[in-house]
Amino acid sequence: MDLSPVRGCRDFLSGEAVKRGEALAALKRVFESYGFNPLETPALESLEVLLSKYAGGSEILKEVYKLEDQGGRSLGLRYDLTVPLCRVIAGNPRLALPFKRYQTQSVWRDGPIKAGRYREFTQCDVDIVGIEGVRADAELAALAFDAFQALGLEVEMRANNRKLLNALLARQGVPDEKRNGAILALDKLEKLGAEGVLAELVGERALAAGIAKKLLIEFKELDALDNKAFLKRAKGLDGASELAEFLELAEAMGAPAGFVRLQASLARGLAYYTGTVFEVFLKNGAIKSSLAAGGRFDGLVGAFSGKPLPAVGLSFGLDVICEALPASEKKSVASILVAPVSDGEREFNAALAYARALRALGVNALTDLKGRSPSKNAEWASKQGVAFVAFVGSEEASGKARVKDLASGEEAELSAQEAAGRVKQRF
Amino acid sequence: MDLSPVRGCRDFLSGEAVKRGEALAALKRVFESYGFNPLETPALESLEVLLSKYAGGSEILKEVYKLEDQGGRSLGLRYDLTVPLCRVIAGNPRLALPFKRYQTQSVWRDGPIKAGRYREFTQCDVDIVGIEGVRADAELAALAFDAFQALGLEVEMRANNRKLLNALLARQGVPDEKRNGAILALDKLEKLGAEGVLAELVGERALAAGIAKKLLIEFKELDALDNKAFLKRAKGLDGASELAEFLELAEAMGAPAGFVRLQASLARGLAYYTGTVFEVFLKNGAIKSSLAAGGRFDGLVGAFSGKPLPAVGLSFGLDVICEALPASEKKSVASILVAPVSDGEREFNAALAYARALRALGVNALTDLKGRSPSKNAEWASKQGVAFVAFVGSEEASGKARVKDLASGEEAELSAQEAAGRVKQRF
Repeated sequence: MDLSPVRGCRDFLSGEAVKRGEALAALKRVFESYGFNPLETPALESLEVLLSKYAGGSEILKEVYKLEDQGGRSLGLRYDLTVPLCRVIAGNPRLALPFKRYQTQSVWRDGPIKAGRYREFTQCDVDIVGIEGVRADAELAALAFDAFQALGLEVEMRANNRKLLNALLARQGVPDEKRNGAILALDKLEKLGAEGVLAELVGERALAAGIAKKLLIEFKELDALDNKAFLKRAKGLDGASELAEFLELAEAMGAPAGFVRLQASLARGLAYYTGTVFEVFLKNGAIKSSLAAGGRFDGLVGAFSGKPLPAVGLSFGLDVICEALPASEKKSVASILVAPVSDGEREFNAALAYARALRALGVNALTDLKGRSPSKNAEWASKQGVAFVAFVGSEEASGKARVKDLASGEEAELSAQEAAGRVKQRF
Repeated sequence: MDLSPVRGCRDFLSGEAVKRGEALAALKRVFESYGFNPLETPALESLEVLLSKYAGGSEILKEVYKLEDQGGRSLGLRYDLTVPLCRVIAGNPRLALPFKRYQTQSVWRDGPIKAGRYREFTQCDVDIVGIEGVRADAELAALAFDAFQALGLEVEMRANNRKLLNALLARQGVPDEKRNGAILALDKLEKLGAEGVLAELVGERALAAGIAKKLLIEFKELDALDNKAFLKRAKGLDGASELAEFLELAEAMGAPAGFVRLQASLARGLAYYTGTVFEVFLKNGAIKSSLAAGGRFDGLVGAFSGKPLPAVGLSFGLDVICEALPASEKKSVASILVAPVSDGEREFNAALAYARALRALGVNALTDLKGRSPSKNAEWASKQGVAFVAFVGSEEASGKARVKDLASGEEAELSAQEAAGRVKQRF
C-alpha cells in the first residue's frame, strides 16, 4: 500500500505544523484586530455554484475535483473562498452591511504540480462587502502591512486599477472587446518577458502588431516610474484619481509610504476585477509568486444574487507564506518534560502532580509515560526540541524538582512556580 | 440557482463561527498543555488507504465520498482522522515514540442526515502512539476532564475495557467468533433497550437465546453497580486489573473521583478497539450522543505498517460540543467601532489614527468606512454586537474620543489608552 499523501497534497508534522499554526494565528489576530468576523463554509459546493463564477470560462474550472453524493447531486470541492463568500451573501440577503469576514480554509485544484503548487492549499481571505469607495481597498492595504509585520516578513504591495488599465488600452486604440484579453496577457510581463507578451497579444489576443508594440512600450515606461510620476502621467484617465486616493488613504490607515508601489502591468489574471488590484511580494525576491493578492470585484456578488453589491478582498496564501518563513524554532509545542527519577509509583505520582501544576500555570508539559531512565529522557527531550526536563524524586515532598536546561546544561532545584517562570522567560 | 449550502453541510457565520473558534482554541490549548503536537493531513486520501482500515467491512465505508483525479487515481474524502494518523505513522517509520499528536480537521460522511448528524463535521483528535500501558489511556481521561473544564461543560466519562468485555462473554459461554458481534449489539443497550438488543443478539448475531438472556441480565446488573462494586465483581477476569489501574491513574493525573464511571455495556461500535474504551457525555443529559469518545487500538497501526504499535486516542466532536455550549456572548469579534463625528477628511483621519492606536493596544477595532451619521453608527454597532462606539472629532487634537458604552449608555472622553482599558475590563 502506498503510504505517501495523495499526489499534490502534503502532511504537516511537528515543526512544520507548529509553524503553520503560528502563522495562521498571527494572520487571524490581525484580521480580528480590524473587526473581521470569521466565516466557515463547507468544502463541498454544488457544481452549479462552483461553475457560475467564471461564466466566461477560466482555467480554474478545468481543475475542479468533481464528485456525486449518494443522492446523485453534482458536487465539487471549492477551488477558492470567493465563490462560497458570494453564495453566502446572496443566500443571506438580510446580512448587515458592510459585511467584513475572514475565512481561513483549504481549497483544492486538480492542476499541474510545480514547485510551490499543490492540489490542496490554504487560503486566508479577508473581504469587505458593501463599501463602494476605496476606503475599503485602503483598509486591506493597511491590514496587509500589519499582517506581514506580525509575520516578520519584509514585503511590498504592488497595486493598480482595472479602470485605469482599460483607459490606457483605450488610449492606445485597443478595441473594447479585446481589452480583457490584452490585460490578461500584460499581467504576464514579469513572467514571460516583453517578447512572450508581445507574441500572446498578437497571437492569442489578436491585437494589431503596431498597437501591441505601442502598448508594451507604454507599460514598460510606466513600470519604471515612481508612484508620483506614474500618477502624474496617468492623470485625467479613468481610475487614476481612485488610485491616488487609495495610496493616500492606505498611508493614513497605517501602511507606511513606500509600502505600496504602483505598477501598470499588474492586472491579476482574473476577469472579474473591476477597480483596485493588488499583490504582495517578498522584498528580497526569494520567492517569485505573490504571498497575498486581491482586488475589487463589484460585479461578482451581483452575479449570484441578481442584486449588485460592491466588494473588495485580499487572499493570503498560507503555504507560500510558510515557505517564506524561516523554520520554526519550536519543533514541539511542549516546553518541558517531567519525569520521575526512578520507576516507583510514588515518584511517578509526584511527577504527575508537578506536571499538573505546570499546566495550571500555563506551561505545556509532557510527562514521561514510558518509564525511561533520566538520561534517556534527557536525550529524547533534546531530540524532540523540548527545552527543559524536570526530574522528580519521591523525596521531593517539598514539591521541587531538579530542572535541567538542555541547551545550557544548567540545573536547579525549582518549585513548579519557579520552573514556570524559567520556561516563560525562554518562550 | 440554489444558494443554500450543500445538503448535510452548513455555513457558520459571525456568532456561530466565533463560538466554534473559541471552543476549538480552548481544546487546542488543553491539547498543547499536555505536549501534543499538531498534525495536518490532506482531505483527500487514496481509496485504498481509506478502505483498508475496516477490512472486515463497516457502515462507514458505504459513506465515503469517492472521486477520481485527472490522473485517474481513485480517491476519497477522509471520514475520520484515525486513518490518516495510521498512514502517517506507517509512512514515517523513523518518528520518535511516543508520538503524541492532535489533529483538528473536517471529515466527510455521505450518510443519512438526522438531527445533529452532518455530512461535514469537525473532529478534534488526540492520540498517543507507542505506549503500551494504561498510563497513556489515563492521560487522555485527565485531558478530557481539563478540556471540558476549559469549555465550561459538566460531563462525565464512561469507561470500559474490551478485554474485560470479551472475558465476560466467554464466561457466559459466547463462542469466540461471535464475541465481536455480541459486543457491537450490547453497545446499543442504551439506544435500543433490552428488548432490542436481545432481538439483535438472537437474530443478527446468532446467539443461543439462553446465553443472550443471561448476558443481558449480567450486563444490566453490572451497569447498576458503582465503580468499586463493579471492579470487585469483575476481579480476576482479563482486563479487570487494567481497568482498575486506569481509574486510579486517571485520578492521580487530575481527573477527580467520580469523573470516570465504569459501564459494562459501553463497547464503542468499532471492531478495532483492544483495551480501554471511553465516551464522554453531558451530565444533564440534554444531548444523548457522546461529546468525545475513543479507546485503545493496538492492532490498527500495525495493519498499515506491518509493525505492530500500541495506540490510544480520544476524539472530540466539535459540532456536538458547540451544540452543547450556550450561544456565544460575542456576535462579533470587534469590541469597538471608531467613527468620525462628521464626514470631513480631518475627522476621518483622526478616527483612523484612533483605531490604529486601539489595535496596537490589542483591541479589535472597526472603523466606519461608510460615512454614516453618529446615530446610525451607534445603531449599527449595537445590532452587530459591538459593545462600544468611539466618536472622533477634528478638534480632538488631544487624541481623545467620546466613547459610548452601548449597553449602559454611559459616555466619556477617553484617550485610546483609556478606551483600551475600558474595553478590556469588559472582555
